[in-house]
Amino acid sequence: MKILLIGGTGTIGSVVANRLKDDYELVIVGHSSGQLQTDITDPNAIESLFKNVGNVDAVVVTSGSAPMKPIDELTNDDFLEGIKSKMMGQINVALTALDYLNEGGSITLTTGILSHDPIPQGSVLSTINNAVNGFVIGSYGEFLQHGIRINAVSPALVEDSAEALGEYFPGHTPAKMEHVVNGYEKSLGTYITGQIIDID
Amino acid sequence: MKILLIGGTGTIGSVVANRLKDDYELVIVGHSSGQLQTDITDPNAIESLFKNVGNVDAVVVTSGSAPMKPIDELTNDDFLEGIKSKMMGQINVALTALDYLNEGGSITLTTGILSHDPIPQGSVLSTINNAVNGFVIGSYGEFLQHGIRINAVSPALVEDSAEALGEYFPGHTPAKMEHVVNGYEKSLGTYITGQIIDID
Ligand SMILES: NC(=O)c1ccc[n+]([C@@H]2O[C@H](COP(=O)([O-])OP(=O)(O)OC[C@H]3O[C@@H](n4cnc5c(N)ncnc54)[C@H](OP(=O)(O)O)[C@@H]3O)[C@@H](O)[C@H]2O)c1
Ligand SMILES: NC(=O)c1ccc[n+]([C@@H]2O[C@H](COP(=O)([O-])OP(=O)(O)OC[C@H]3O[C@@H](n4cnc5c(N)ncnc54)[C@H](OP(=O)(O)O)[C@@H]3O)[C@@H](O)[C@H]2O)c1
Repeated sequence: MKILLIGGTGTIGSVVANRLKDDYELVIVGHSSGQLQTDITDPNAIESLFKNVGNVDAVVVTSGSAPMKPIDELTNDDFLEGIKSKMMGQINVALTALDYLNEGGSITLTTGILSHDPIPQGSVLSTINNAVNGFVIGSYGEFLQHGIRINAVSPALVEDSAEALGEYFPGHTPAKMEHVVNGYEKSLGTYITGQIIDID
Repeated sequence: MKILLIGGTGTIGSVVANRLKDDYELVIVGHSSGQLQTDITDPNAIESLFKNVGNVDAVVVTSGSAPMKPIDELTNDDFLEGIKSKMMGQINVALTALDYLNEGGSITLTTGILSHDPIPQGSVLSTINNAVNGFVIGSYGEFLQHGIRINAVSPALVEDSAEALGEYFPGHTPAKMEHVVNGYEKSLGTYITGQIIDID
């Protein structure tokens, strides 16, 4: 089973890659690092990546970002930045994957706890995480008609980011990396679809 | 109490206006109709509207659209169309309202049942409805620091659209217009905030 792992060199992605590497054939993609490079903010770059890699059995995205700012400083452009990256970046990967996934294939995206558990300055991320969750919920039935499953893993602040980001998340208990990776393994290895896999 | 009702000439908005008109001072805004006109897809037009109207006690938005298409025909541009209108249109109204709402004011946006109850061809609307719900959930705490409440009314297919749109919603029971308007009255008249008011 061949898996395209976009963001596979990051904090979460590298731990996912480490768990999966013995059982699966991985293609690890980063922005400037990894075996291959892409830019998920550019739909043409996503198409080129898939053309280059060819058909796969699963696509996992552990990439995408959005700015953090107080509500009275937020502009349309701040939202567009997050929309282009974490929201449409992931959605465009899913739309493109439709043409390159083998029958029975799966797509696993990454959202996050801010969808339902907000923090100060987190409005854009709450918006974008929920948008991607909404895409999974809204599209899974049609993906199923094409023989493809789609889920999102929605982690809490993860252990390996707690030192760098913990001050933004007062009172949040970081998720264990082992539990976070379990979410991706569940999406890959079960038959579930249309699910938001919360990892708290 | 003065209410700015954007989309107040539409299917839902006109029924909301009709219920509220005896108890509140309404400013009814449409795109080409209404007492005043605006274009919520243009952040500058939103700013001009508020400058023109001045301070208000509440803002209600019953406007915004997104394309319906099968998943294998959807492009980045289809999503951007919905993002510009129903998603960022409403979010930009809320961000602008921050400067024009009186203390104790409220913002009420409109999402919809597709956020959690999907239909074929509804992926963009599921995505966008959830994005706006996510904005409400993610931002209400910061709005509260400014003395402002924010909620979304999330109706099922409404009775008055059942004839035109019912075929897209197999097995969905249309919401009574009276119940839909109750949602807006609840958001305006109670002290709730950060809530998604489902009207099924
Ligand atoms: N960290 C957390 O606590 C946490 C919690 C919940 C959710 N999440 C979400 O999980 C995802 C991954 O987070 P992370 O902390 O692991 O991020 P990260 O450490 O910053 O890693 C990001 C990964 O994405 C790649 N990347 C960056 N920009 C890209 C682009 N434009 N196109 C394609 N790939 C790109 C990076 O490649 P290069 O290294 O080559 O740049 C890297 O592999 C994000 O969506 C984040 O919001 C994170
Ligand atoms: N109808 C339903 O069954 C249903 C169910 C759930 C959710 N919703 C949501 O509820 C909202 C209202 O739906 P509706 O059926 O009442 O819509 P509608 O009948 O099409 O009315 C739309 C309203 O918005 C105004 N408008 C259109 N484009 C605009 C723009 N660019 N800038 C500012 N105003 C604009 C229209 O003004 P003009 O008349 O001057 O063009 C009109 O007042 C939408 O977000 C819709 O997705 C609807």
